[in-house]
Amino acid sequence: MRVKKLRDLMEKEALDYVILSPGSNTFYLTGFFEEQMERPLFLIISKDDEFFLAPKLYEEQLEKTKIATISYEDGENPYSKLTLKTGSSIGVDDQLWSVFLIQIINNFKPSKIIEASKMLRKLRAIKDEQEISTMKEGIKIAEKSFLQFLDYVTEGIPECKLANILEEKFIENGADGYSFKTILTSGPNTSMPHLRCTDRKINRNEPIIVDFGVKYKNYSTDTTRVVSIGNVSEDVKKVYEIVKEAQISAENGEENMTAMKIDSLAREKITMAGYGKFFIHRTGHGIGIDVHEDPYISQDNLERVTNGMIFTVEPGIYVPGKFGIRIEDMVFMEKRGKPLNSLEKNIFIV
Amino acid sequence: MRVKKLRDLMEKEALDYVILSPGSNTFYLTGFFEEQMERPLFLIISKDDEFFLAPKLYEEQLEKTKIATISYEDGENPYSKLTLKTGSSIGVDDQLWSVFLIQIINNFKPSKIIEASKMLRKLRAIKDEQEISTMKEGIKIAEKSFLQFLDYVTEGIPECKLANILEEKFIENGADGYSFKTILTSGPNTSMPHLRCTDRKINRNEPIIVDFGVKYKNYSTDTTRVVSIGNVSEDVKKVYEIVKEAQISAENGEENMTAMKIDSLAREKITMAGYGKFFIHRTGHGIGIDVHEDPYISQDNLERVTNGMIFTVEPGIYVPGKFGIRIEDMVFMEKRGKPLNSLEKNIFIV
Repeated sequence: MRVKKLRDLMEKEALDYVILSPGSNTFYLTGFFEEQMERPLFLIISKDDEFFLAPKLYEEQLEKTKIATISYEDGENPYSKLTLKTGSSIGVDDQLWSVFLIQIINNFKPSKIIEASKMLRKLRAIKDEQEISTMKEGIKIAEKSFLQFLDYVTEGIPECKLANILEEKFIENGADGYSFKTILTSGPNTSMPHLRCTDRKINRNEPIIVDFGVKYKNYSTDTTRVVSIGNVSEDVKKVYEIVKEAQISAENGEENMTAMKIDSLAREKITMAGYGKFFIHRTGHGIGIDVHEDPYISQDNLERVTNGMIFTVEPGIYVPGKFGIRIEDMVFMEKRGKPLNSLEKNIFIV
Repeated sequence: MRVKKLRDLMEKEALDYVILSPGSNTFYLTGFFEEQMERPLFLIISKDDEFFLAPKLYEEQLEKTKIATISYEDGENPYSKLTLKTGSSIGVDDQLWSVFLIQIINNFKPSKIIEASKMLRKLRAIKDEQEISTMKEGIKIAEKSFLQFLDYVTEGIPECKLANILEEKFIENGADGYSFKTILTSGPNTSMPHLRCTDRKINRNEPIIVDFGVKYKNYSTDTTRVVSIGNVSEDVKKVYEIVKEAQISAENGEENMTAMKIDSLAREKITMAGYGKFFIHRTGHGIGIDVHEDPYISQDNLERVTNGMIFTVEPGIYVPGKFGIRIEDMVFMEKRGKPLNSLEKNIFIV
């Protein structure tokens, strides 16, 4: 049981409490999902107990988790209902808002504060059967949506409009929504890897980067493909082939390689082709409930990528002011990396 | 200029730095919007300077803000690039993730940490002309979508499916998306005010609560109406009328009343009708870039609601295991409360 495993790890860290916010960690441990909000809602795990502190309006909903709830009404001071040992050592959710941590510090004067992810990320990085099958279903929905969306890629349509069409397809095909606001950039905008979309109209013969993912049963997908109306220039083609080679190389990484090694499989290809300085981000990241989670496939990560992990491989080359290219698949580690995506890896010419 | 106003407030609090995460505060001050992520991206404001600390992949995008950026590459230690005075007094974004606050504490040993909202919420609570007009446009889109969505409310359709249809309408009508995952509950599920939706199928003659909002140009809307296929029971009707009376009463609150007073205008009506213990949340909340922001219309808030503020008025009655009713409009304070919504306040019988 997941809470029990966490408790074993808490013991090793000599922690008295782990305090989690609504979000992925709480969902992972209890099945209860909610966004973080301005009202404190914590899942608190101690050596021998676990309970929620929650606004009264969640009381009935939380009963389903079978975990005890200390509830407070709007207008009451939630912290006065909590009895935590003063001077204890605590692990807090990485994403817990600072407004709550400041209150916890002021009210309970912890002697030590660490990130709860130190323990939870180890558990969450290894996916179980059910998680894998949910994520595979999510990818199916995402890819089906992408293929349907290609029909709408036409000259003159604004980027954001196109992104919306793709997101509508997600829902039509049974997703709960997107896992992140779609990145859909065209022409020179493609050199900004994290720009979402603008009102720029799509032209013929230019790269369009589509970086998209669905949320399905609280799990995330993340995939990137390049689309173009008609052929792209020789320059773009050349860069595309380099990125593709890098992507495939890292995707074929093996069990127990360090994350850094897998990163280097992609980075070396790009560097050797002379584009090293234009590959301005890591090669990938773990994915599960959160879009970004452990293991991070980056140049400085010495952790080993082991069986059961799911992560993205998404090298890119970005020439400022000109264009960018990125290709991204989700990969499951099972002796060697196995892509979970089935979309072809070439440019989608429409 | 907004940054200048913030600096004046920082001086009063004797703060050396304000450190903001990506999100609503940063958008308010700079026009740059991004979700918070695992890579540190901070907007830092000192007495005489402002700058971003950001991953290199945001460099080109951030140039548009005209604010200097200290950038770092994946694999570099972002905190080593920052020179903040040790032992300084800082204000941090309420929503800054704890993982970053812990790093800031460890690296710069601040002598004092407060919530940046202490200053920013005062600025953000009063909307300017452009904000008001953007929010009005958002409401138009939300209401148009709701009215179109009514055609799909039919016997046997599952709650979540209906919620998705409404969210598709948002996008078709020009919204960027939803401002929060739609709450759409039916029958006994309506007694849980913050349950989102389930696969329960809609029946005739039962209340359906639809609590919905769009995101438009980074601003939020938030509205609740009750829908039913055919008539509802006398019990439900009776409770509905009480909630409606309470809603109208608080909506008519006047300039410079305390938030508590406005809350009580609704609460008294419900209490006098004998349902006080079933009104388990505050009467409303400010709204703007965030769905929930100052002023909170709650029993313990002594702040005054002044001209230029926009907030929701959304009393509710929730009878556990039976049903719940909530009615919510957005209200603009201009001498007295003026509803920004134009949907009628009765049950929508389809």
